[in-house]
Amino acid sequence: MSARLGIIVVSGTLDKVLPAFMLANTSASMGIETGMFFSFYGINVLHKERIKNLTLSTDGAIFFSSLNPGLKDLNTVELVGKTTEMIKEKFKSNKVPSVEDLIKQAIDLGVKIYPCNNALKMFGIDSSELFEGLENPVGASTFINFINSAEKSNVITF
Amino acid sequence: MSARLGIIVVSGTLDKVLPAFMLANTSASMGIETGMFFSFYGINVLHKERIKNLTLSTDGAIFFSSLNPGLKDLNTVELVGKTTEMIKEKFKSNKVPSVEDLIKQAIDLGVKIYPCNNALKMFGIDSSELFEGLENPVGASTFINFINSAEKSNVITF
Amino acid sequence: MSARLGIIVVSGTLDKVLPAFMLANTSASMGIETGMFFSFYGINVLHKERIKNLTLSTDGAIFFSSLNPGLKDLNTVELVGKTTEMIKEKFKSNKVPSVEDLIKQAIDLGVKIYPCNNALKMFGIDSSELFEGLENPVGASTFINFINSAEKSNVITF
Repeated sequence: MSARLGIIVVSGTLDKVLPAFMLANTSASMGIETGMFFSFYGINVLHKERIKNLTLSTDGAIFFSSLNPGLKDLNTVELVGKTTEMIKEKFKSNKVPSVEDLIKQAIDLGVKIYPCNNALKMFGIDSSELFEGLENPVGASTFINFINSAEKSNVITF
Repeated sequence: MSARLGIIVVSGTLDKVLPAFMLANTSASMGIETGMFFSFYGINVLHKERIKNLTLSTDGAIFFSSLNPGLKDLNTVELVGKTTEMIKEKFKSNKVPSVEDLIKQAIDLGVKIYPCNNALKMFGIDSSELFEGLENPVGASTFINFINSAEKSNVITF
Repeated sequence: MSARLGIIVVSGTLDKVLPAFMLANTSASMGIETGMFFSFYGINVLHKERIKNLTLSTDGAIFFSSLNPGLKDLNTVELVGKTTEMIKEKFKSNKVPSVEDLIKQAIDLGVKIYPCNNALKMFGIDSSELFEGLENPVGASTFINFINSAEKSNVITF
């Protein structure tokens, strides 16, 4: 039976994007046809430059600040910036793969990565600014059809 | 084969509600039976007055603040308020449909919109305060049954 | 037809965890085989001590602050702390079940609760620190297989 997994990424924070790719790449490794649709803030994840600016979510920042009481007086933007720096450092020393690596791995494993064409417009991005190896930008209907035309499918949303 | 798409909305922020309705309305336009279940903060989206106060998520506000360095010293509530104003202005000039318009369009397309009866209680909302054209308030089991009784279904969560 | 519901919890905030368990427990009560996979911040929900520190999401805190204008000058960490206190008080007086109660109920109803083994490592948690009655820690592939090996399945992500 042909099974598909669709993953919708509308968040652009590290702590959503990492599980999205970990699930996508695991699923593709298991032989499940896997497609990802990047819309809203998610589109920035596929952007060669903007990917460098991904941060933790505010909720993630607050979680990590609870382990570092010295951070609790920072304002939101500072708090997110500071905890993101700390986590990126920790990830590097623990050899957690970067999002760039996960994207490359996804493409190698045959995951289909669809940029949302409306999100490109909304954020003023030209498709030449995106990583190589992605599918052409599409609308939501193409992605819904990807899911719906399989005999069996599931969707995960981040 | 009868296919259904269920969309659960527990978030009440603009940047979750817009993709929820865009996917719902696209799906219904494709002939897929589409139902939405509004619970937790999501219930406020269906409220005739409270819908006017929807804001960006904090993560969205932080993203937009990165494009507007003048905002970085605001506290959370101010930051979310300010960026929401900016985005609403931008949406208006780009003719992005409002959430009110998307709800009307959803109803016209036959999307079934289910308010969660527990969420109504939790937020002290009487069902007369909700938009016209919705389904009667239901519990989670009715929505799970909507999904589960189709031969094929998928769920998207916001 | 054997149906399954998979619920992925990567968020560790009260306002995501409560709907996750409410849906899981409703689904299990309806005779649907239900499994939950706790990864990223979600792993802290299964920790006997850390569960006591769950807070509202920042977006939830901002929503509640709009009903309590006295809170609007607090910084993020204070705002989340203060609104969480208020809501926990309100939940207690309204007899909303605690997350601990919902976990126990889930186990009693036969919901399979899978801790993610990578998340345990990432957050430095030993499985002896988790609640009793859970499944053994697994990787993402075990959970994807749980979903995918059913004739019919859906996934909800929080």
